[in-house]
Formats: sequence, structure tokens, C-alpha cells
Amino acid sequence: MPLHRYDVTIRFSHCDPAGIVYFPRFLSIFNDAVEDWFTRGLGIDYAHLLMVERLGLPVVHVECDFRHPCRMGEVLTVTLGVERIGRSSLALRYEGSVSGEQRMTARTVQVHTSLATHRPIAISDDWRSRMQAYLLPG
Amino acid sequence: MPLHRYDVTIRFSHCDPAGIVYFPRFLSIFNDAVEDWFTRGLGIDYAHLLMVERLGLPVVHVECDFRHPCRMGEVLTVTLGVERIGRSSLALRYEGSVSGEQRMTARTVQVHTSLATHRPIAISDDWRSRMQAYLLPG
Amino acid sequence: MPLHRYDVTIRFSHCDPAGIVYFPRFLSIFNDAVEDWFTRGLGIDYAHLLMVERLGLPVVHVECDFRHPCRMGEVLTVTLGVERIGRSSLALRYEGSVSGEQRMTARTVQVHTSLATHRPIAISDDWRSRMQAYLLPG
Amino acid sequence: MPLHRYDVTIRFSHCDPAGIVYFPRFLSIFNDAVEDWFTRGLGIDYAHLLMVERLGLPVVHVECDFRHPCRMGEVLTVTLGVERIGRSSLALRYEGSVSGEQRMTARTVQVHTSLATHRPIAISDDWRSRMQAYLLPG
Repeated sequence: MPLHRYDVTIRFSHCDPAGIVYFPRFLSIFNDAVEDWFTRGLGIDYAHLLMVERLGLPVVHVECDFRHPCRMGEVLTVTLGVERIGRSSLALRYEGSVSGEQRMTARTVQVHTSLATHRPIAISDDWRSRMQAYLLPG
Repeated sequence: MPLHRYDVTIRFSHCDPAGIVYFPRFLSIFNDAVEDWFTRGLGIDYAHLLMVERLGLPVVHVECDFRHPCRMGEVLTVTLGVERIGRSSLALRYEGSVSGEQRMTARTVQVHTSLATHRPIAISDDWRSRMQAYLLPG
Repeated sequence: MPLHRYDVTIRFSHCDPAGIVYFPRFLSIFNDAVEDWFTRGLGIDYAHLLMVERLGLPVVHVECDFRHPCRMGEVLTVTLGVERIGRSSLALRYEGSVSGEQRMTARTVQVHTSLATHRPIAISDDWRSRMQAYLLPG
Repeated sequence: MPLHRYDVTIRFSHCDPAGIVYFPRFLSIFNDAVEDWFTRGLGIDYAHLLMVERLGLPVVHVECDFRHPCRMGEVLTVTLGVERIGRSSLALRYEGSVSGEQRMTARTVQVHTSLATHRPIAISDDWRSRMQAYLLPG
């Protein structure tokens, strides 16, 4: 199962006065992981998609369970897989771990959208076939 | 029902290349709303709580449904209510709206915790009685 | 001298593991102050300017001296004045203080620019006359 | 001259409604570069320094000149060198470039400080000798 893997070093700038990562920053890290998955995993240039084609994948639902905090200097490994590919929507699952210890799990639903009209757009067969390689079991 | 109300003007710095608020920033806005609720709503100084008493309320679960995007210059009104007060945990519900139009709903579960030991701490009767004024029906 | 005044409550989300505001966030606060100055001080709708007219004022130079740190719960008062109005460029000065104690001073140079072509645009006489009311002595 | 080199991929999350990196994020990227320099360049564990020893290097002065904007998908190479090592203070210079084209230059002055007392601390001879390897000419 070729889950996409994205590593990020936890920086001072991610952390809060409690000395741990401020939780909204994990959502931003997951978004970076999606960007990396598109560009390096699926072979779809995410920057070109947004800035030139003016197409996006805005998040309509997010949920996240935090099990253990992350600290400065740790390397967080995000693994990303596809739960479901709808007509225009995409459900993704994420796990964040440090040295094999699970720190959090998350799920997003995103909708393929025109940034000009804010209307949903059907996911093409080409995208669908590339994404299916990351489909999670069950 | 005295839901706590927190207004924030959407700034350039909240927005992304799609011209709308980057979704992780809403989670940070909700956290600001909790901080404001503690200090102004409950009469518990959140800064003192964290920085002097070294007690916190780390988020262990978050979920959010985004219905309509927010744009620069809009004033987002966050209303916050209490869903459930457990022994150490607290479930909060949020609604974000602009001029009465709902833009998103969210829910967090937070655990009252010592920042020194990272162990849960029982919510005091004093806190409990202050929080009950914000309890949602059902 | 009608310096523009912008107040912001320092939040948990502004602070770092040292328990004080993470310095790049002050630059973002100053940018929020400029936005507020345009909309409320000058009567020029900043959101409309950027999102509809696609005109902006990108920062080409910033400098900031930090004298004392800021802490969660403090209210930072930013005062903003105009140092110089050029053909397309604008030099602004900022002071941040808490209860009258100076915490930092800063200066930016911004260039009025088309977001479509990234070319400089002359500051109009209308803007110039509005901005002159905020001109600093010397 | 072993300038420290730090590469960062520009993400959607760095960019603003003008489609370019929001300038305060560059200051945060430079701070990440300092962190990386300490840990990987100087062999001083920055996370341990801050979180265990409670010593830091708060920025007391920053200046930055932005020459060309950065866009999503670009890889920004930050090079960092030492301008001056004082008793407790450190002046650093930064250049950011993309594929060899200079995008910005910056300079910070930081003061070695106890996070407990907020008092300056002398830079040790050990640190000084490690840092001298990164001293810029002139």
C-alpha cells in the first residue's frame, strides 16, 4: 500500500507556551502533506493547479484526534492515504508518528473546486486512477 | 442562554492564495475565543492560568465543518457553548457566522492538564459552576 | 497629530515556548494595523483594493527593534504614522506599547503595486492628501 | 567560507491573497534556519538549549530587504553567516535565493539570554569558536 509519507522537523515556530506544537499547526502540516502528495506522489503540480489553472481542493470537513504532544526537534512522519474518491470530493486519512509512536490521526474531506466560481468540479478519470494507488483497505 | 460571543475581523494575514481564510486559521480563532471566554466570560485569567499556575486545556479532539468561505474584511462572529463537562474534560461547540449567515460549526474536546506533568486534573467545583451557565440544551 | 492607533490583545497563539510573542508575529500585527489604517483611518477599503481592484502595497523593506518582550493577556497598542510619501512608495513608522511602556519600534517601506503585473503604480493625489494627515514631523 | 545553507519548499500555507509569500513568514523561515544552523551546523542541540537549559537567543533587531517575491512550489535557499560575535550578542546575515536568483537579504541581532531571568548571558568560548567558522569577511 503506497501511503504517501511526508516528514517535517518540529520547529520552535510550531510550538506554544506549553512547549508543544500548537494544535492548529498540525492541520497546516497535513495540508502541506497533501500538497507534497499531489506534486511528488500523484505527479500533479499543485502550485500550477492553484495559481495557473485556478483549481483547488478546499477542505469542507476536518477531524483530528491528538494522542501525544509533539516537541521541538522531533521529526513528525505524516502518512496519508485515500479513504474515498467521490464525484468531486475526496476523503483523506492521516497518521502522524514520531519514531514509530503514533501521535495523532486525522481525516479531511475536500472538494475539487474552481477558485473562480467556487463551484465543485468532477474529479477526472486521470486523477482518479492516480489516486486509487493510495486507496486504504476497507 | 449566555453563549459566549467573540468577534474577529478577517485580515489579509488570515487569507490564502484562493483569497479566502486558510482553514487551519479558524481553529486558531476558536482557540482565541476559548481564551476570551475564560478571561471575560468565566472570569478566569487564562494568561495567569497558563503562565503562572502552569495549567492548561490542551485539545485532544477537534472537528469542523466548513459551509461557506470567509473573505478579508468580513467580521466573523464566533459563538461558543459547553456541550459537556466531564471530570477533567470539556466538550465545546462553536458556530462561526458573518452577518447572521452560518459559515462553519466546530467541536473540540479539551482536557484540563498540568503543563508540568502533562497529567489530567479534575475540573474544580468553582469552574464547573461558572461553566454551567454556558451549557447547551440537549 | 492623528497617528493611527490599533489595539490587539496578545493571545496564546502569538506566543512561543519562551512564553513571549514570537517576533515574526509582530510584523504580521503591523500589517494588520496598516490594513486597519487604510479601512478605518484613510477611508480606503483595503479588502476591496486587494481583492477587487487587485492593487496592493507589498513591503520591500522592514526593520524592527524589540526593546521588551510582550506576554499573553497584554494589550499591545500600535501607533502608525507616515514618514514619507514617494511617487509609488510609502515609508511608515510604528511604535508598539503596553500601558504606555514602549516595547518596540519599526519601519516599513511599501510600494503601491498592481497584483496583476507586479509593476509599481503612482500614489493618487486623493490617497496622498488623505495620507498627509498622518505625516510625522521631521 | 562554510555559510550554513537551509532549503525550504514554499507552500500554499506560506502564501497570501496576492499569491506570493506573506513577508512575515520569511522572518519565521530565517528563524528556522538559525535553529537548523545550531543543531546541524554548530552541533548545539537548539531544542535542548531552549526546553531543558532554558537558554535562548531572542531577536532584538531585524531588517530585511525584499527584492523579488517568492511563489508556491519554489525552493528557497537560505544562506546564513555570522557578521559579528559580541559578548552576549550575535549579528547574523541571511540571503534568500531561488535557483541562484537573489530574492531577499536580511540581518538579525540576537542576544544570548536566560529564559528564566530574561538577562543576557556571555557567549561561551566553545560556542564562539564554533561560530567563528561561519564568520563573514569584512
